[in-house]
Amino acid sequence: MSTQNPVFIPGPTNIPDRLRRAIDVPTIDHRSSLFAEAFRPAVDGVKRILKTRTGEVIIFPATGTGGWEAAITNTLSPGDKVLAARHGMFSHRWIDLCTRHGLDVEVIEADWGEGLPADRFEAALTADTGHRIKAVLATHNETATGVRSDIAAVRKALDAARHPALLYVDGVSSIASMDFRMDEWGVDLAVTGSQKGFMLPAGLAIIGISPKAQAAMEKARCARCFFDFRDMLSSYQRGGYPYTPPINLIFGLVESVKMLEQEGLPNVFARHFRIAEGIRKAVEAWGLTLCARDPRLYSNTVSAIVVPSGLDGTKVVTHAAEKFGVAFGVGLGEVAGKVFRIGHLGSMTDVMALSGIATAEMVMADLDFPVPLGSGVRAAQDYYRATNGVAHRVTSKAA
Amino acid sequence: MSTQNPVFIPGPTNIPDRLRRAIDVPTIDHRSSLFAEAFRPAVDGVKRILKTRTGEVIIFPATGTGGWEAAITNTLSPGDKVLAARHGMFSHRWIDLCTRHGLDVEVIEADWGEGLPADRFEAALTADTGHRIKAVLATHNETATGVRSDIAAVRKALDAARHPALLYVDGVSSIASMDFRMDEWGVDLAVTGSQKGFMLPAGLAIIGISPKAQAAMEKARCARCFFDFRDMLSSYQRGGYPYTPPINLIFGLVESVKMLEQEGLPNVFARHFRIAEGIRKAVEAWGLTLCARDPRLYSNTVSAIVVPSGLDGTKVVTHAAEKFGVAFGVGLGEVAGKVFRIGHLGSMTDVMALSGIATAEMVMADLDFPVPLGSGVRAAQDYYRATNGVAHRVTSKAA
Amino acid sequence: MSTQNPVFIPGPTNIPDRLRRAIDVPTIDHRSSLFAEAFRPAVDGVKRILKTRTGEVIIFPATGTGGWEAAITNTLSPGDKVLAARHGMFSHRWIDLCTRHGLDVEVIEADWGEGLPADRFEAALTADTGHRIKAVLATHNETATGVRSDIAAVRKALDAARHPALLYVDGVSSIASMDFRMDEWGVDLAVTGSQKGFMLPAGLAIIGISPKAQAAMEKARCARCFFDFRDMLSSYQRGGYPYTPPINLIFGLVESVKMLEQEGLPNVFARHFRIAEGIRKAVEAWGLTLCARDPRLYSNTVSAIVVPSGLDGTKVVTHAAEKFGVAFGVGLGEVAGKVFRIGHLGSMTDVMALSGIATAEMVMADLDFPVPLGSGVRAAQDYYRATNGVAHRVTSKAA
Amino acid sequence: MSTQNPVFIPGPTNIPDRLRRAIDVPTIDHRSSLFAEAFRPAVDGVKRILKTRTGEVIIFPATGTGGWEAAITNTLSPGDKVLAARHGMFSHRWIDLCTRHGLDVEVIEADWGEGLPADRFEAALTADTGHRIKAVLATHNETATGVRSDIAAVRKALDAARHPALLYVDGVSSIASMDFRMDEWGVDLAVTGSQKGFMLPAGLAIIGISPKAQAAMEKARCARCFFDFRDMLSSYQRGGYPYTPPINLIFGLVESVKMLEQEGLPNVFARHFRIAEGIRKAVEAWGLTLCARDPRLYSNTVSAIVVPSGLDGTKVVTHAAEKFGVAFGVGLGEVAGKVFRIGHLGSMTDVMALSGIATAEMVMADLDFPVPLGSGVRAAQDYYRATNGVAHRVTSKAA
Repeated sequence: MSTQNPVFIPGPTNIPDRLRRAIDVPTIDHRSSLFAEAFRPAVDGVKRILKTRTGEVIIFPATGTGGWEAAITNTLSPGDKVLAARHGMFSHRWIDLCTRHGLDVEVIEADWGEGLPADRFEAALTADTGHRIKAVLATHNETATGVRSDIAAVRKALDAARHPALLYVDGVSSIASMDFRMDEWGVDLAVTGSQKGFMLPAGLAIIGISPKAQAAMEKARCARCFFDFRDMLSSYQRGGYPYTPPINLIFGLVESVKMLEQEGLPNVFARHFRIAEGIRKAVEAWGLTLCARDPRLYSNTVSAIVVPSGLDGTKVVTHAAEKFGVAFGVGLGEVAGKVFRIGHLGSMTDVMALSGIATAEMVMADLDFPVPLGSGVRAAQDYYRATNGVAHRVTSKAA
Repeated sequence: MSTQNPVFIPGPTNIPDRLRRAIDVPTIDHRSSLFAEAFRPAVDGVKRILKTRTGEVIIFPATGTGGWEAAITNTLSPGDKVLAARHGMFSHRWIDLCTRHGLDVEVIEADWGEGLPADRFEAALTADTGHRIKAVLATHNETATGVRSDIAAVRKALDAARHPALLYVDGVSSIASMDFRMDEWGVDLAVTGSQKGFMLPAGLAIIGISPKAQAAMEKARCARCFFDFRDMLSSYQRGGYPYTPPINLIFGLVESVKMLEQEGLPNVFARHFRIAEGIRKAVEAWGLTLCARDPRLYSNTVSAIVVPSGLDGTKVVTHAAEKFGVAFGVGLGEVAGKVFRIGHLGSMTDVMALSGIATAEMVMADLDFPVPLGSGVRAAQDYYRATNGVAHRVTSKAA
Repeated sequence: MSTQNPVFIPGPTNIPDRLRRAIDVPTIDHRSSLFAEAFRPAVDGVKRILKTRTGEVIIFPATGTGGWEAAITNTLSPGDKVLAARHGMFSHRWIDLCTRHGLDVEVIEADWGEGLPADRFEAALTADTGHRIKAVLATHNETATGVRSDIAAVRKALDAARHPALLYVDGVSSIASMDFRMDEWGVDLAVTGSQKGFMLPAGLAIIGISPKAQAAMEKARCARCFFDFRDMLSSYQRGGYPYTPPINLIFGLVESVKMLEQEGLPNVFARHFRIAEGIRKAVEAWGLTLCARDPRLYSNTVSAIVVPSGLDGTKVVTHAAEKFGVAFGVGLGEVAGKVFRIGHLGSMTDVMALSGIATAEMVMADLDFPVPLGSGVRAAQDYYRATNGVAHRVTSKAA
Repeated sequence: MSTQNPVFIPGPTNIPDRLRRAIDVPTIDHRSSLFAEAFRPAVDGVKRILKTRTGEVIIFPATGTGGWEAAITNTLSPGDKVLAARHGMFSHRWIDLCTRHGLDVEVIEADWGEGLPADRFEAALTADTGHRIKAVLATHNETATGVRSDIAAVRKALDAARHPALLYVDGVSSIASMDFRMDEWGVDLAVTGSQKGFMLPAGLAIIGISPKAQAAMEKARCARCFFDFRDMLSSYQRGGYPYTPPINLIFGLVESVKMLEQEGLPNVFARHFRIAEGIRKAVEAWGLTLCARDPRLYSNTVSAIVVPSGLDGTKVVTHAAEKFGVAFGVGLGEVAGKVFRIGHLGSMTDVMALSGIATAEMVMADLDFPVPLGSGVRAAQDYYRATNGVAHRVTSKAA
C-alpha cells in the first residue's frame, strides 16, 4: 500500500502537513503552564466549532466510541430508557453500547439509506407520557451509508412532544466538515473524534456537554472512572487532566481549529459540499446511485455508492488497495458488499478527489462493471472547474 | 518553559528522535494489510517485554488509567471483593477506581514510602477461606513515592495462602525500564502505558492478560464496551480494531520495542539502575533521603526526595520550571510538599541526569536549603564515570 | 498554493514520507564516527545508481549548477576548448557557465526538441585532429524540452573519432529515474542533484568522476576552492568533509538509495516509463504533441507539451497554480509560451499522474483550448489499468 | 554516539524543535508566489540581524566556505592584493582560498589566541599609498581559538589610513549569537552560514553586501557562475533563484529570525554572554585557561580550553564521544592537541551547559587531568543561579 496517494476512507482523513508538524512535539510537563496555556484554546476552539456558548467541552484520550461511552455513562443510570433509530452500522453500534451499559433501548428500525425518522421519534416521545425515555440518540452523519440527518428536526420532535429527554448526537463524521449547531439545535451531548473533520490522527474523543447534561451528570449511576466528566471538569479548573493528557494531539487540535477558522467555517462547509457534489456528479455519470435515498440526505463527508446488482462492492475496495494503492471504504453490516464508500472529508481538494474518481473507474473497469472510463471524471471536472473559486451560498442543502 | 532541556518528570519521558520519527506518519487505512502487518509485531514485541509466552496483549487508545479500568471491568463483577494496599497516590487512585465500579475493596493501609506488605497480603488471603477475594491489586512501582515493590513476593503470598485470586499489577512506571516477569511472577493482568518505559507520547493503554484472566473475562459483569477485551480479541483475529486504532502510536510501539531489544533488556535495566544510582549518590551527598524507606525499595525510574523539615518540596518544582525551564515532579497526596521527584525513566543518559542534579542544586540553593552547590553533582559524576561502559551484573537489587 | 496536491514540476519532486523522516534528524558531530558511518553508504550507494565501479563520487552542499561548475573547474583550464550542443535551456546554461569560466566552447546548435546530434559531434571531433577539444558536454535529459538523448551514441562518436576528450554528462533530471550507465557509456563526469530522482529537497550536488577525470584534475587550472575535488577526496579518507557537510541530506541520500534498491532499479525505470507513457497517451488523446520530436527522445521524467498555435502555455501553468493549487512547469527560453511541462519524476504514482492530467484538462478547458474534458484521463486510465502490476520488459525505448 | 545529549561543537548547533518543524516541509514550486512570499522575509530578516539598511543579502545553497568564495570572486580579480591576518584555522583557510583564486595575499601573522591586530592593519594600509590593497579580510570570531576580534577597530584602521579597500568579515560563528553591526562598522562583505547562530542545519551561505561591494561586483574578473551575485540579484527581482533554491532551509531561516527577534537580539547576545561566562567560571575553577589571551577577546560562542602541559586535548574529545556520547571540538592546526573546545552557540541553555561542564570534568578525571570533579560545575552553578532571569546590561565586553 503506497503512502503517496491520498486516502479516501471516511476517516481517519489525510493529515495536512501543518498538523503533522503541530503534533510532532517533544515532551513537555503536562502539569506546567505551558500545557495549560495550550489546552484552554483547544477547549475554546472546539466550542466555536460546535457552535456552543453555554456548553462545556471535554477531551479524552480515546476515540469516538469512547466518546459515546462517556456521554452515556456520565448522564444515565442502568435501566434508563433510551430512544434510538438504527439505520446504519454506527447507529447500530451505539445502540449496542447502550445495551452493554444496562440501558433499555427502544429501537426504531429504519432502512439503511434513510435518515433519522423525526416523525417516528415524535410519535414515540409523545406516547411516552411518563417521560421514561431519558435520552434520544441521533446519528448526525451515518458513516456507513453516507446519510446526513436533520438534527434540527429531531429537536423539533422533542419540543413538539414537550419531552424533557436529553438529545445525544453522534457527530463523529460530520463535525468540523458539515455545519453543526449545538446550541441552536438543543444538543445536550455532542460526540466527535480527532481523526475526521479535525484532520488529526485518531486519539481524541471530543464531547460537547450542555448545562442540562451537566446537571444530569450528578445523578447518573452508570459506572465510570476513566471517562468521568466530574474528574475531568475539576481538573480543568487547574488547567490539567486527572491523568496524563494526550499532549501532542491537543497541540494539534489547537492548530486544527486555527486552520478551520482561517479558512472560515462557512468556506470549509462549502468546500466539502463542492467536493462531494463533484463525486456525486461522477456517480450519476456512471449510472449508479448513492445509498442515501434522497438528495437532502447526501453526506458531504462520505459517499456510499451502490454497486450494480450481482457485483461486489467489497472487491472494489480490495482491488483498489492491491492494484493502485488507494484506500476506499467497504460496505458494513446490512450494506456489506452492496456498496463501496468514498470518503471525502477533512483535508481534501477537488484535484485529490479526481484521482479517487479516476481510480474507482479503473477498478470498476477491471471488475467488469458497466461503467465507461473517464465518464465520472469528466462530469466531476465539469463541475469542479465551474465552481472552484466561486463563492458559494451555503444553503441548508449544501451545508 | 524551554523545550531544550530534558524533562525529569516521571513520565511522559523524553522521546527519542527515532520514536519521534516513527510516529510521524501519514494516514494509512487501518483496515488494510499495511496496518495489520504493523500491528502484529507491536503485540508480539510487548509480550517479549512483559516476558509472557502464554498471555495475550491488548492495546487501547487510552492511558494507564484506562488500562486499570479495562483490567478491572473485563474480569470482575460489581460486588466482587478486591484486596489492595494503599501506599501512594497511584495505588490510592486504583482503589478509588475499583470503588467507582462497585467493587468491594479491602484496603491495607501502608506508610507512603513502604513497599507492598506481602506478609499482610498473605494474612488477609489466608483469612479469606471462602475465597471471596477475587483480585489482588499490586502497584509494582509507586510513582508517587519512588518505591518499587516485590511482585514475586506477592505471588508467593497468594501461593502460600493457596488462594485463587487473580493478580493485577500496575506496571505503568516500571515496565520496559525495570525487569517485569509476567509469567514467572504469575501476573494475571499487567497494565502499562506508552509514555513511560516505551518512551512514546501518552495515548496507549497496554495490558497483558493471562489465560486465567481471559477465562474470568467470560463471567465478568462489570459494564464495558470501549474497553471490552472480547471485541478487541475478536477484531485482532482480523488484524484490526473494533474502532479506529491509534495508528501512529502503534508504529511507534513497534519501533520502541526494536530500540529496547537492540539495546538488550538487561542493558536497559542496568542503565536505569545506573542512572538512578547516580541520582541516589547525589541525594546522599546532599544529606537528604529518599521517600523510599529501604534500598531494596528504591525505584530505578523515579526518585522522591524528602525535603528538610520546614521547607516546601513543591517550591523546588515551580522554581525549577520558572527559573530554569526544567520540569521535576511535585509530591502528591500525603507527601505533597514533603518531597520533590526526579523522573529518570525512559530516554535518559547519565549526562542528562547530571543536568537535572545540577539544576536541583541551584534551585535548592535559591530556596535556602542546606545543600552545597556541586556536592551532588560530584558524587554522581564519580559514580557515573566509574560505571559508564562497565558491563553490569544486573542483580536482583539492580534490575 | 495548496500543499495537499502533488507537484508536477520537473523537480524538486514530491518527497516520500520516508525521506521526510530520514532527513529530520538532530545535530550530530560531523567529525564523529556516526557521520562517517552514514557517509560511506551514501557514496557507495550513489555509485551503484550511476553504475560505476571504477569511478569516485563526490557530494557537495550545492545544487546541480554547482555540480556542473565543479565538474568543469576541477578538470579544465581557462582557454580549454569544449564541445557542446545547445538544444534546450539547460544545455544553454551549461554552455554559459563554461564561457564564464574562460573556456572556449564550440557550440553545435540543434533544434529545441531534438536530441544530441551524435553525428555532428563525431564530425567535429574527427575534424579536431589536434585534439584541442578537451571536453564534450552532453545533456542526458533536457528538462526544458523533455528530451532524453542517447549518451551511448555520443560515446560512440568519441570512439569513432578516436578522440581523447573527456565526456561530461548532465544527468540532473535523469539519474535515478532513467537508466544511466557511467562505466558502460564511458562517462567521465556525471552530474546530478538531490531533488530529482533521489526525491530529496535541493541541496546536494552529486558528481561521479572517472579515473580519467581524476587524472585530469591534477592539471586543471580553473580556480576553485569550495568545489575542489582534491580537498574533498582527501577529507573522504578521514570519513569527512573539508567543511561542514549537509548532514541531514546525506542521511536522506542513504535512505533514498535504499528505497530505490528495494524497489529495484529496473522497476524504478519501468515505473517511470509507465507513468510517462500514460501521460503521453493523454497528450495524444488531446490531439496535442510533445516538444520532443521523436518517440525515441521521449523523456520519462518530464513531458513538454506543445500548446496549439495562438495559445499560451505559460497561462496553463499560472491558471493551474492559482485556481487549482497544482504546479506544472512553464516553457523556458526558446519554447517559452509554446509549451507547458508536466514533471513526473521521482515519487509519483499512476494515481497521482491522473490527477495531474485531469487538472491540465480543466485548465485547458478554462482557457478555451480545443481539448475535451476527460479525454486524456480516459486514455491514461486505459493504459494504466492495463499495465499496473504487469511486469514490464524494459526495452531500450522504455528505459 | 547518543543523539539524546546536547552537542557542544562550535556548530552546527543544537537545532530547536521549532526549527526542526519549520524545515520539515513538502515540496512547493520554487517558481510560485508561495516561495516568493517566504523568501522576501528571509532576506529582510537577515538584514535586520546583520544591522544593515543599505546592504543587500544573498543566500546560496552552500556553506560558509562557499560564502567566503562568493564574497571574494564577486568583488575581486586575479592578482588583486588582499590584506589578512592569520591567527587561527579559519583565518588560515580563508587566506588559502584567496590564494587559490589567484589573489596576492599579504598575511599578517599573529599568535593563535590573539585577536585581529588592528594597529598592524593600520600600518600596512598606511604604507600602501598606491592603494594596491583591494580587500581587508577580518575574522570576527576565530572558531578555532575562541577569539572574538574588534571589527570596529579594523574599520578605524581603514579610516585612519584613509584607505578605500573593501572590508570583508567572516561572521560565520558570531552572527546571530554576538552583536554584529554591518553598517555601523562599515563592513562591505559579511559572511555567515545557517548552522551557527541561526541554529539550522548546514546548507546556506548567507552574505551581506554593501553598496560599495555591489559596485565592485561589476568590475570583478574572478571566474564565478554558481556563486555569481549578479544572477542572484536579478533573479531576486522576480522573487526567485537562478537555479533550484534550498526551499526548506529558507523556510527555516524565516522562522529562525522570528525566534531571534521574539527573544530580542540584545537578549540573545546577553544569553550567549551569560552561558559563556558560566563556562569561563568553570574553566577558572579548574585552574585552566582559555586559548584567548585577554578577556576582551573571549568569544561568547566557543571556548577553546588549554589543557595542562603534557596532556592531550584531542583525547578529551574522543573520550567524551566514546564514553559519554558528548561531542566537543578538537584543537585544529597550531593548537591541535593543545586545546579542546566547548561550543555554546545557538540553541543552548545554562542547564545544557552544565551537563557539558560536568561531562568535561568526568573526562578530564578519567584522563588524569588535575581537575577536581564538580569544581567547575559549582562555579558555573553559582554564576548561573545568580544571573538567570536577571536583566543584563550588555556592556561592550559582554556583547
